[in-house]
Amino acid sequence: MSKQFGPEYVRAIAPYQAGKPISEVAREFGLDEASIVKLASNENPFGVPESAQQAMTKAAAELGRYPDANGFELKQALSKRYDVPMEWITLGNGSNDILEIAAHAFVEREQAIVYSQYSFAVYALATQGVGARHIVVPAKDYGHDLDAMAAAIDADTRLVFIANPNNPTGTFVPGPEIEAFLKKVPANVVVVLDEAYNEFLDEADQYESAEWVRRYPNLLVSRTFSKAYGLAGLRVGFGLAQPALTDLMNRIRQPFNVNSLAQAAAIAALNDRAFLEKSAANNAAGYRQFVEAFEQLGLQYVPSHGNFILVKVGNDLAAGARVNLALLKQGVIVRPVGNYGLPEWLRISIGLPQENAVLIAALQKALAEHRE
Amino acid sequence: MSKQFGPEYVRAIAPYQAGKPISEVAREFGLDEASIVKLASNENPFGVPESAQQAMTKAAAELGRYPDANGFELKQALSKRYDVPMEWITLGNGSNDILEIAAHAFVEREQAIVYSQYSFAVYALATQGVGARHIVVPAKDYGHDLDAMAAAIDADTRLVFIANPNNPTGTFVPGPEIEAFLKKVPANVVVVLDEAYNEFLDEADQYESAEWVRRYPNLLVSRTFSKAYGLAGLRVGFGLAQPALTDLMNRIRQPFNVNSLAQAAAIAALNDRAFLEKSAANNAAGYRQFVEAFEQLGLQYVPSHGNFILVKVGNDLAAGARVNLALLKQGVIVRPVGNYGLPEWLRISIGLPQENAVLIAALQKALAEHRE
Repeated sequence: MSKQFGPEYVRAIAPYQAGKPISEVAREFGLDEASIVKLASNENPFGVPESAQQAMTKAAAELGRYPDANGFELKQALSKRYDVPMEWITLGNGSNDILEIAAHAFVEREQAIVYSQYSFAVYALATQGVGARHIVVPAKDYGHDLDAMAAAIDADTRLVFIANPNNPTGTFVPGPEIEAFLKKVPANVVVVLDEAYNEFLDEADQYESAEWVRRYPNLLVSRTFSKAYGLAGLRVGFGLAQPALTDLMNRIRQPFNVNSLAQAAAIAALNDRAFLEKSAANNAAGYRQFVEAFEQLGLQYVPSHGNFILVKVGNDLAAGARVNLALLKQGVIVRPVGNYGLPEWLRISIGLPQENAVLIAALQKALAEHRE
Repeated sequence: MSKQFGPEYVRAIAPYQAGKPISEVAREFGLDEASIVKLASNENPFGVPESAQQAMTKAAAELGRYPDANGFELKQALSKRYDVPMEWITLGNGSNDILEIAAHAFVEREQAIVYSQYSFAVYALATQGVGARHIVVPAKDYGHDLDAMAAAIDADTRLVFIANPNNPTGTFVPGPEIEAFLKKVPANVVVVLDEAYNEFLDEADQYESAEWVRRYPNLLVSRTFSKAYGLAGLRVGFGLAQPALTDLMNRIRQPFNVNSLAQAAAIAALNDRAFLEKSAANNAAGYRQFVEAFEQLGLQYVPSHGNFILVKVGNDLAAGARVNLALLKQGVIVRPVGNYGLPEWLRISIGLPQENAVLIAALQKALAEHRE
């Protein structure tokens, strides 16, 4: 009798590599936690908005109770904000949950999922998790090649993942090109438009994806409160789609997937325009700070539309890992992206001005060490 | 081209029916939230322990960061408490997540899962979610018939769910009978022993399932912080199993499935013996209070080992729904269990003495109304 457990496609999964938590780096490298700068996970350097903290304090009294499985109040707030019915909303334990739910709800073993090279690692994991075939479309200038992706859709394809802006490369596809793609996709193929970094877009780049949701019954827009809204530690995201998709998503969704504090905090954060504006302004300034430094250091980078930058720290295949280690020893955590097929690059989150300055100095030192 | 999305087995799922939240009942029945008594979801009536609240306050400063994907500190505490290596632990977004992860990690379409009639609703949902065949074994005295369950395991079976104590019936299988079952199960079939209500067991009934985990490589023990520990709103549970199972579970697990506050609160609650003892004592007293009342009212009930009691409120198939509605109108929320095939019964959670008294009075009134 075989003692090997689990489907073959599950055994083939390589687990997601999360950014190292500050406490782990402190333990491993014998550093003081307070001295560590973490620019690794595209978090909001301002942390949780004050408005959300207040909402959590109010909700804390009822934490012995299960969360509202239907997320009534949060859905009501989202419904108002995006002008869609509450029945078009799926709440997720972060948008990671939305992406996983979509794969489980719409794709089964031996069907196929299309996504781009260098796009978010969870697309590959979600595809493997349902035993589907991966159709990975080569990137164009480190971003999505939507023409090639449309052409790659085959008879087995049931889902396409698009990240816009893309993580980890920061590339962006303008709204009209996304809509042209939506027009081309067969009606039985679900398009998941993952907009985790949407709130960092320049005004000129912004588009109304909720409007497309009204027009395309096969579109699911995924959003998160983990980035611009500063709620990464709480876990909350959501999907917008017409009922044909949302009904199925909610059959797969775990009923209590979004905790009570996350629901309360998200409502407050959603309405906190001032916090979003402050975060966007800090991000734009930090982006300029990094770009100047990279140009001075003669480092290639991918122009980014998110709250992070992909930068090439050497020409050999060990460069990313080597510079990452040199940064860790200096108490600076960034994200190596060898698992994305980008071993010469690092992904650096944009932090507060002083955090960015620490990273730049540490990077300079790390690069100089290797040259000596 | 078909516009029907999703696998057939997903389209067949009927979503989980959660207990009505207090706010929803207040809206629907025009009641004041403060006046509502909720004995519907087997929550701890004391709410979150003070120790856990303090731990959360400390953790709140870092909520802009992603949670520790590896849950180092919580696993360290669990490892110490259950005397198993940290590598044997899977953290879940509630134990619901552990159950779902197990189904996804160990079972694929066209294989089979065995579970008992009248056992926890999530077993059926998890089975449908992976497109597996359900083998539902008839209950014996409203509880698990382990001999019949062992006999029901066929060549396609990859997983067996056992709830001990069982929800919603409160039945309990003594430790030696569980171990006899474990000895009989084929080595390639995973046994998920769901001990969500373990902490409410009398001392005489307690057994060491962590010891079995060391002995049986196909055993996964599932536990939760949502019941006795009072953290339902935060979402945290865990699984204990040898690495052959735990490795696969962690490939399916979403990396940030357990939020930061839940991790911090769980560590504190785990070490709060006084809170657990207070909760168990309140539960034992409340159980006697209900049993006396049901006997006075001449109502049949299933002797319970959990923090809830299943009580028969009539002999017709509409009894549960009718009495439930009469209770809701009086501002008392309990759980109808028609979806479990128990339409004459209600499941009532054990609350504080005064909450129990409100329920008993409301139930008396509801039953009297129907007799008139």
